[in-house]
Parts: sequence; C-alpha cells; structure tokens
Amino acid sequence: MSATFASVALWLLMAALFFLPSEDAVAQSNRQNVLVIYVDDLGYGDTGVYGHSVVKTPNIDRLAEEGMRFTQFYAPSALCSPSRAGLLTGRNPYRTGVESWIPNDSLVALGDNETTLADLAKERGYRTAVIGKWHLNGGLHMQNAPQPRDFGFDYQYGLAAWVKNAAVRESTQLPRRGAMFPDNMYRNNTAVGPTQKYSAELVSDEAIGWLKSASGPFFLLLTYSEVHTPIASPPNYLAQYQAHLSQEAKDNPLMYYFDWRDRPWRGRGEYYANVSYMDAQLGRVIEYLREKGVLDDTLVIFSSDNGPVTDAPVTPWEIGMAGETAGLRGKKRFLFEGGLRVPGIIRYPARVQAGRIEQRPATALDVFPTLAQWLGVTVNPSVPLDGESLWPLIDEQEFERQQLLYWSIPTPDGMEFAVRDGDWKLIVDSEGVPRHLFDLASDWYELNNLLESESAVRERLLQLYEVRRAAVETDPLALARKSRER
Amino acid sequence: MSATFASVALWLLMAALFFLPSEDAVAQSNRQNVLVIYVDDLGYGDTGVYGHSVVKTPNIDRLAEEGMRFTQFYAPSALCSPSRAGLLTGRNPYRTGVESWIPNDSLVALGDNETTLADLAKERGYRTAVIGKWHLNGGLHMQNAPQPRDFGFDYQYGLAAWVKNAAVRESTQLPRRGAMFPDNMYRNNTAVGPTQKYSAELVSDEAIGWLKSASGPFFLLLTYSEVHTPIASPPNYLAQYQAHLSQEAKDNPLMYYFDWRDRPWRGRGEYYANVSYMDAQLGRVIEYLREKGVLDDTLVIFSSDNGPVTDAPVTPWEIGMAGETAGLRGKKRFLFEGGLRVPGIIRYPARVQAGRIEQRPATALDVFPTLAQWLGVTVNPSVPLDGESLWPLIDEQEFERQQLLYWSIPTPDGMEFAVRDGDWKLIVDSEGVPRHLFDLASDWYELNNLLESESAVRERLLQLYEVRRAAVETDPLALARKSRER
Repeated sequence: MSATFASVALWLLMAALFFLPSEDAVAQSNRQNVLVIYVDDLGYGDTGVYGHSVVKTPNIDRLAEEGMRFTQFYAPSALCSPSRAGLLTGRNPYRTGVESWIPNDSLVALGDNETTLADLAKERGYRTAVIGKWHLNGGLHMQNAPQPRDFGFDYQYGLAAWVKNAAVRESTQLPRRGAMFPDNMYRNNTAVGPTQKYSAELVSDEAIGWLKSASGPFFLLLTYSEVHTPIASPPNYLAQYQAHLSQEAKDNPLMYYFDWRDRPWRGRGEYYANVSYMDAQLGRVIEYLREKGVLDDTLVIFSSDNGPVTDAPVTPWEIGMAGETAGLRGKKRFLFEGGLRVPGIIRYPARVQAGRIEQRPATALDVFPTLAQWLGVTVNPSVPLDGESLWPLIDEQEFERQQLLYWSIPTPDGMEFAVRDGDWKLIVDSEGVPRHLFDLASDWYELNNLLESESAVRERLLQLYEVRRAAVETDPLALARKSRER
Repeated sequence: MSATFASVALWLLMAALFFLPSEDAVAQSNRQNVLVIYVDDLGYGDTGVYGHSVVKTPNIDRLAEEGMRFTQFYAPSALCSPSRAGLLTGRNPYRTGVESWIPNDSLVALGDNETTLADLAKERGYRTAVIGKWHLNGGLHMQNAPQPRDFGFDYQYGLAAWVKNAAVRESTQLPRRGAMFPDNMYRNNTAVGPTQKYSAELVSDEAIGWLKSASGPFFLLLTYSEVHTPIASPPNYLAQYQAHLSQEAKDNPLMYYFDWRDRPWRGRGEYYANVSYMDAQLGRVIEYLREKGVLDDTLVIFSSDNGPVTDAPVTPWEIGMAGETAGLRGKKRFLFEGGLRVPGIIRYPARVQAGRIEQRPATALDVFPTLAQWLGVTVNPSVPLDGESLWPLIDEQEFERQQLLYWSIPTPDGMEFAVRDGDWKLIVDSEGVPRHLFDLASDWYELNNLLESESAVRERLLQLYEVRRAAVETDPLALARKSRER
C-alpha cells in the first residue's frame, strides 16, 4: 500500500503543479471507494429490474445487472428519519434517538455519541460527504443540533427533509403554480438560496463536482429527495409518461398541490416521471465514475429508506402518488412488507457476480458492520449493533443471521412492532398484543394470519420481540445521552 | 298508443307467417325498453371515460358520450349481494334480508316479499330477463331458496356468485392451470354444464339470443361477472396489455391462482385485459340494439355493484387485481368513497343530452323509483324506499334529495355505517362511535377528519344515522318475514 500511497502522493504533487485546480481528481485514486445511494420513498416494485411494467429505470437496472439484487432487502424502518439513522449506525433507530420523522426545528436528532458510516471511512483516511437529504435533525440551519460534519462527514450539501420553494408555497394566488426548484438547500450548513434546477440534478451536479474536487478514496452518501412529495420533474420526463397523465395534469402542469384535498386526479405519470428523472440523475454520477475508470473500484450500495407512498393516500400530500410494492401488503408507515421491503442492490465486480439475485434477507442495518469489516475498523464492542456483516453472503458462503430482524413504528395509538425470525414474521400492536403471524415462505403477501393455528411460533416470536425491545430500550448509548440530559 | 299497438300486432302476425322462427324479434318493438347493465367490482377509475390512463373501454366510453355520466354515483353497498338487492328493490339492502355477500348453499336470500325492477316491468307487460350473475341467494340450484323467476324475471341465465370450473379448481396437479370457462352456469335454474367460452361472451351470446327470441318491450338486467375474481380473458385481450404483464405472467398463462398466497407478481395486465374484454362483450349487446334501430328507444343504465379490488390485497383471491378508484380512499368492502362510488351512466337520447356530466350525487337505489315513475307503476306506499326518482335530475330540473344516503357493511368487529347528507359524510364504527367526518365538497379524498372541529355537524349526522338505522331495523317487510319465520 505504501508504494501506492507514494505514487498517489507524487501524482498529487504533479496535479498541484500542472492542473490547478484539478478537474478530475477522483480519477487519481486507485483505492476502493464507497458510494451509498439512498433514495426516498422508492417502493419495492418501482423500478424496471424489480418488475415495474411502465417505469423506465435503465441506470438502476444496469446497476443490478452488473451487481447483485436482493429480493428481501429491508429498510430499518417504514419511515425516513429512523431508516437513515439505522443505515448510518447499523443500530435500531430507536437506540439512536430517532423514533419518527423529524419535524422542522425539532431538537430530536441522531444521538451525538453515535458512530456512523462516515466515521468508519474517516478512520481509514477517506474523504467523506453526504450529498442530498439529511433528515437526521430538525434542520441544517440549527446551531443547537448535531450536524453532518459532527458525524464524520467532511462535506455536506442538500436539504433537511423535503423540497421546499417559498415563492411557490406561499403564493397567495390560488391555485399555486411554479417550478419546485428547491430553495432550502444548504452547503456545509450554509443556505444556498434559490436554485434553478430540480432537486436530483442539483444533487448530482454537486456530487460530481465533489468527486472531481479532490483525490483519495471517497465515501459518498448520495441521498436523493426523489420520490418524496412534493415530486417535481423536468418536462421531458413528464412527456415520457403522457399516457399516464390525466387531462387535468396535462392542462395544468407545475401545480403545487401539497395540501389540496380536493384536487382532481392527475394520473400516475407525474410519479413515474419522477422515478425516471431520479434514475437518470443517479446514472450521471455512476457514469462519471465509469468514465473515469473508478467504478469497478467502488463498492456501490443502492437502496431506499422505506416503502412507497401508493395511490391510496392517507394524508393530503400523498394524493397523486403512485408507488408500487409489487403487490406486497402495506406501504410507507406500515409494518407489512410493503412498508419495509425495498430495492437493495450491491455492485462490486471484484466480489459480486453480475446479475446475481439473492433471496436471503438483508437490511440496511447490515451496511455498517459490512463496511467496518471491509475497512478493517474495529467498532466498540459495548455498542450493540443490529445489523451483521454481509460479506459471507456477498461471497456466497453460508450466512446464518444471528440478529433478529426487528422494527417499530409510531402510530396514533402508540408504538407498533414487527419481528422476523427465519421466515416467520410477527406484528405486535400498540398495546403489546400480537396481531399478525405470517409464514413469509408460503405467504409472500401476508394474507394468511396464523396467530391462532401456530400458537407455539407466536409465543416464541413474542418472547424474542420482548427481549429485543427491552434491549433497545436500555441501549447504553441512549442511556448515556439521557443521563447527560439530567 | 293503440294505433301503434295495432301496427305492431299486424307486424307480428306477418312475422309469424313469414319469419318463423323470427331471428330478430327485438327489432319489432318500437316501445321503450330498459337495459340495466350492472358489472362486478368495476372501480370508479377503471374505465377510459372515468380517467383510466391505460385501460381501453370504447363501448362504455361511447355510452357516456351518447348519454350522461355521473361523477358521484353510489352503489347501495360496498359488497356485491347487498348492492344487487338494493338495485333491484330501491331499498337499503338490510331491509331486504341481504346483509353481506351470500355464501354457496346459504339460506340467506332476497326476501320473497320484495318487489323488484322486473316486477315493475312485468306489470307493464314487458318481457323480462336477468342474464349474468344473480347472487341474491345461496345458489341457482336451490329448491328451497327464492329464485329470479320468483321476482318477476321471465328468464334467467348465468351464475350464482362467481366463475367456477371444477376441472381447473380441483386439479391435483400443481400448479393448477386451465381456461376458466364457467361450468356453473344455469338457464332457468337448470345447470348448463361445461362451456367453452369465458363468462362475458356466454352472457352476451345469451342476451342477444334472448333479445332476438321474441318481440315486445323488454327489461333486461345484464350482470357481467367481470371483473370479479377469478378473472379470465381471451388471449387477444391479454395481448393488448403485454406491457403490463410480468414475465411470470407471460411465461405461465392460464394459471388458476385463486387461493395461492405465494404466487409471483403478475402485473396489472390481466386485470386490464378483463376490463376491456367485458367492455367488448357489453358492446356487442349495445351494438346489436343499435343495429336493430332500438337503442335510442331503450333506457340504458350502466353501473357497478361496488368499488374495485385494488392492488393492495387483503385476501388471497385479491392478489393480482388492479382496480382503480381514481385516487378515492378505500376500495371494495370499505365505506370510504373508493368502496362506494362507482361509474354511473344513463343513455336515453329522448331526454338526456349527449356528453352531459352530472355532478349531483345519485345511487343505484334510485333506479327502482325512477323506473316506477317512468312506467307509471304505483308502488305500495307502506313499503319504505331509500332511493328517489331521478327524472327531475335527468331532465335538468331542481333536485333536492329527501332521503339520506346511508350505507352499512359487516366487518369482523361488527357493522359499520356511513351517511351522507349534502356534502357531509359521517362514518360510524361497529360500536356506534363516529370515526370520520368529511366535507366532500372540499375533501374529495376523505383525508381531513373534521370530527372534532365540526362537532355540530357530527352530532346532526349522528342523529340522522340513528334515526335511519332504527327505521331500517324495523322495516315492515323485514318484520313481516321475521314474524312468518316464528
């Protein structure tokens, strides 16, 4: 490695002399990089490679064709903030202080004593960035909240929660109209101000710029806001899905409908366009790496933070959405598979055979221990992890999961829970009463409740749930934060 | 009228002399006919004219273009049997003895003291038939159940509940395969035996045959089994929606999946094909009437018995369905609009302007009083009706609905209820507790629960509900049946 380091150092020196500023510094690294692409509210069935019959996602499809695709990849939660906390730490979100989505200006945040993916990468000298949505605190403007650069990220660009544009949102002329170019972007926690592009393009521009800006191995967490509401896509993507737009949508583009309950049906085309737009934009970053010859030296992980918002809205801002679970029961915010199971793709040709389809369950909680093992970083053994290193699975070896798959979700009535052990899945209601027991091996759609007929399994899973819940509620880092607050 | 009658009589005599048997007897009538097309589980958004962006329904669309289309047409129930009881009687289904869908061999049936649409038509000398699904008793084979011909129908053809085919269903070779040609059709309560066509084509063949078979004004209740599960369509309709079939569906046509919980995702194409197939078949009947020059002399009413089965299954037999509510909340079996609001079209050029779109609410319960008024049949004033004659509305006059719109649905926890008064809608749970209050004028998708903020409205609607519920539970015909049972 020292020879490599010396040659890089030499190259850097040359670059400093001859190419100031370097336009293509990323190409200078021949060490292994990490690119984690985490998208927002993309459903299990929203992409071509996962079976969507209309939406075109050539870049995500190619990622899967060149890598491996999981059929049972889980989000850490059915909600955005908790899932992101789980991805970054490898720990159940409730251990980290993030129990639900975080409202603007809230003091809820990812616990400042948590160790993240970026911390692991920094420990190995990587340059690190989060570009895109953060949503692990109440806002990127907050002085009194932990921020990305407190968690090992050198660089931050993006927004806190979802796309906003004051000129459109606060228009007093109804109906409100206008292009939802985000005006809530921050760069290293400084407001960027108004923009002139839709979110995904801004994010890809910034990512490519950051990749170009320096050399050395990188860890990039690329978190598109798409396809979270309010969705907005350039006209050429909408044009691709004209057949799926209602006349109303064709006649009235650029409507801002976020809180309108009586708006007319606009068809599924706006959603489809947004998926394809996001795909094209993440494709730009991947193709940039390919062109520079570093893509194969990059561990690429792609997933989504939770199940989709479907065409069965339960809030006004969900109207007009059209996410697909590919038939899985439930959706975003529900503990059925449709809320939890998401696309999961790993591309890394050195160890992953192209086109592989992996049927064994995995979770975004596994990314942290996977990366730690790969980077050779020893993590504090007294901090409980809920994920497991996927390298045995990636290397097609035996992989017996030791950790229970365990989820919780806040509902108006209290917390609900789900656990999966083997192919059995138990859902427990807010009063601790078991409500659903499914055998996912024979009941992919969770329609056959075996709560009564499989009482022994039910009791076993109920006990596993109780033990895990107690462990989460007495997490040492969470307790340390609490005792400090007192 | 007597001159007309004489000329018809003369024509009939000539026909009898020259055209034995007459092939086209229907064309001999120049009196006004009634065709009620009632389809199964077709959603508010499942047709082209109601905004579906993929499914082609040229015949239903044309019916609307040549007639009037309701934007707020309601089914009497969110379930098939009760809705059909309501359509036939103009009375809340619970008055008629039909509270839920009727299982095979059940003794539950439409009360034999009820008066139906066919009774009205018979009273005016019409020939009458029900061709298609009945589902107002436990089976067309039952000697001890009231049958269609007990309710004013001269002629019956069709099935009791949904398409069955013993050879496919009972196959011991898994996976089960085969064309679902119904083997559970009955003609005048005699089993027809195996068939060689899919259901809708059998029904249209029979309808056209019956129309041809005799002269005189007719009342035809045409009740396609499509798009109720198990759906089955000829290959050319599936071919139209190849882009919406998964590879699994393309590779494995003719699978019988009714109770398979772990079957793979097959896409929406099978559902789309079934809608278009049904449309084509009902189009055959309409075009037959058009060709014979009697379509404009026929009052045509088209609707569906409840909201659709969507792609969010809650039972195994719902897997693979893809019904559309056009964004309305809920679906079949739910009292949100998606379960209750259905397509509603009236074609009658003598009094309905082509292409009209009617925004005022109406319900299939209105068909009975509408027909009674039109035929000049006096109905027993001591039998409460829940519908109202639509003629003022059809004639574009003032129409102030006197009757509360009122629905109930059985759930595992008991009966739930909904009432609509003006634009206000209240949903009451199985314990009599009001749960949702919506202002449909501003909240088309029922997302803004005003239960707390509009407490005066809530209390008013709660009282209306209680009064109506008490009236339904003490219905004189229902009480008469009960006292007879004792």
